[in-house]
Amino acid sequence: MAILVVGSVVLDTIRSPHGEARNSLGGSAIYFAGTASYYTTVKLVAVVGEDFPDEGERFLAERGVDTAALARVPGKTFTYAADYGENMNERTSLSTCLNVFEDFHPVLPEEYRRGHTVFLGNIHPSLQLEVLDQIEDPVHVAADTMNFWIHGQRGELDRLLRRVDTIFVNDSEVRELTGETNLIRATRATAALGPSTVVVKKGEHGASLYHDGRYFCVPAYPLELVKDPTGGGDAFAGGFLGYLDGRGSFDGVSLREAMLHGTAAASFVVEEFGPRRLYGLPSARLEERVGELRSMMRVD
Amino acid sequence: MAILVVGSVVLDTIRSPHGEARNSLGGSAIYFAGTASYYTTVKLVAVVGEDFPDEGERFLAERGVDTAALARVPGKTFTYAADYGENMNERTSLSTCLNVFEDFHPVLPEEYRRGHTVFLGNIHPSLQLEVLDQIEDPVHVAADTMNFWIHGQRGELDRLLRRVDTIFVNDSEVRELTGETNLIRATRATAALGPSTVVVKKGEHGASLYHDGRYFCVPAYPLELVKDPTGGGDAFAGGFLGYLDGRGSFDGVSLREAMLHGTAAASFVVEEFGPRRLYGLPSARLEERVGELRSMMRVD
Repeated sequence: MAILVVGSVVLDTIRSPHGEARNSLGGSAIYFAGTASYYTTVKLVAVVGEDFPDEGERFLAERGVDTAALARVPGKTFTYAADYGENMNERTSLSTCLNVFEDFHPVLPEEYRRGHTVFLGNIHPSLQLEVLDQIEDPVHVAADTMNFWIHGQRGELDRLLRRVDTIFVNDSEVRELTGETNLIRATRATAALGPSTVVVKKGEHGASLYHDGRYFCVPAYPLELVKDPTGGGDAFAGGFLGYLDGRGSFDGVSLREAMLHGTAAASFVVEEFGPRRLYGLPSARLEERVGELRSMMRVD
Repeated sequence: MAILVVGSVVLDTIRSPHGEARNSLGGSAIYFAGTASYYTTVKLVAVVGEDFPDEGERFLAERGVDTAALARVPGKTFTYAADYGENMNERTSLSTCLNVFEDFHPVLPEEYRRGHTVFLGNIHPSLQLEVLDQIEDPVHVAADTMNFWIHGQRGELDRLLRRVDTIFVNDSEVRELTGETNLIRATRATAALGPSTVVVKKGEHGASLYHDGRYFCVPAYPLELVKDPTGGGDAFAGGFLGYLDGRGSFDGVSLREAMLHGTAAASFVVEEFGPRRLYGLPSARLEERVGELRSMMRVD
């Protein structure tokens, strides 16, 4: 099978207590494609400007990502700048310049328009819908979102949620989305909005899955140093959905297994600024961490 | 075997978004004894005043707790008052009156002075040491503490930690204890202070165990309504240590299994104000939740 991912490609300037990166490769589509490509074929739908660095082209080529629908247009690539505070859980956004992304309205190539597992990265819900409208009979539709859209584009977001199989949210988003402070009630209330599968990402506290009335929890991979949390959530989605598409099954057992792969994928990305920890990373290293996670959940 | 627990018995006045309880049975020793007694014999070392309610005596009798070393003295029982805010994670202490607890210096009965699993509830570290000094060849020593002692009594606390097998801390305490913001580093640094087993309690995010270089994580039991988190940590310790003492083994497999029992025990206590959810609760209900937790950690 194959996954079609629509999202942003960004040049990030990030500062954390553990260092700094300037105009570093980033964006939801990059992190997702970089990790999902360990498991399946990934088709990237995104836009970059003339300043898109060779590093980005090399990375996508190394990961074997299909870039037929990566538009290269005049102008500058989307840029973003943020600081992480001492405890690494709070991010302060400093600037967001959409640049070429501002007029991004992808028209999918004919061969992208049927089937596929689809990942709608964290972009405007109306853009997520615009893409979804171009696809007939998707195998599985997953989406990410954020507080900004939950507050500002609730109508569009609700329309989207009714057409989504899997939604990825973090613990603060799931509360804001539903108005429930209790995480369990918030998770169930999210499922009632449409998605049959709800994945709640909780950073250092791991992630939980709600599907078919059953909860499943995975701890975070135990890292002694997180340099840059940026992209961790998209990498999680990439490992999770990549594994599922590669396996060709979206049943309960597959979804639970996929949680381990998402967690392992995210653990590599946050160890370095940008996706650079993935450069040259053999897939056996991902499998190793999946094995370690399994042992963290096993009594014997 | 049997567990000796030293801690506070308190009359709590607690307000949360889900109700209020006035002069309700509480304190670390009550929650610990109430839950550990599902697994083993519990000997309670504590003090109460003349106002200690019949409800308390009935509860301890129902749970079969040995109260030979529960001192009943003239004066008032320890009282405590606190409010929980909307998200239930922040507690504001309103008043703490030690009353009869102020002069509490227990002299253990002769038959309490050898062997035993020992739980030193969250009281002044010098009092914890005073009790420990009276016991020869304890089977296993576990202790709880809090930020107040971490800041104010660090020397005493460090002396205690060198003599403790298992330490219970929450995620903010483990950071303050070690000065490490990363939870994994903080956990390892805590083990370096003495305890061979570190249990980090994370409320709605579950709990993690570090022992013999290996991490193990358990999710919280999925509750849709937490009325009063007070005593959850002590109930966790009670289920955890009670299970271990009842099993008569403290090896890695037993410790990991005990994490499930601690989690299940805590889940009942926080469903109601005080320990009242335990009144008449059959042990089969605890086993049920242990089974559900197991399924939340299992892929198949």
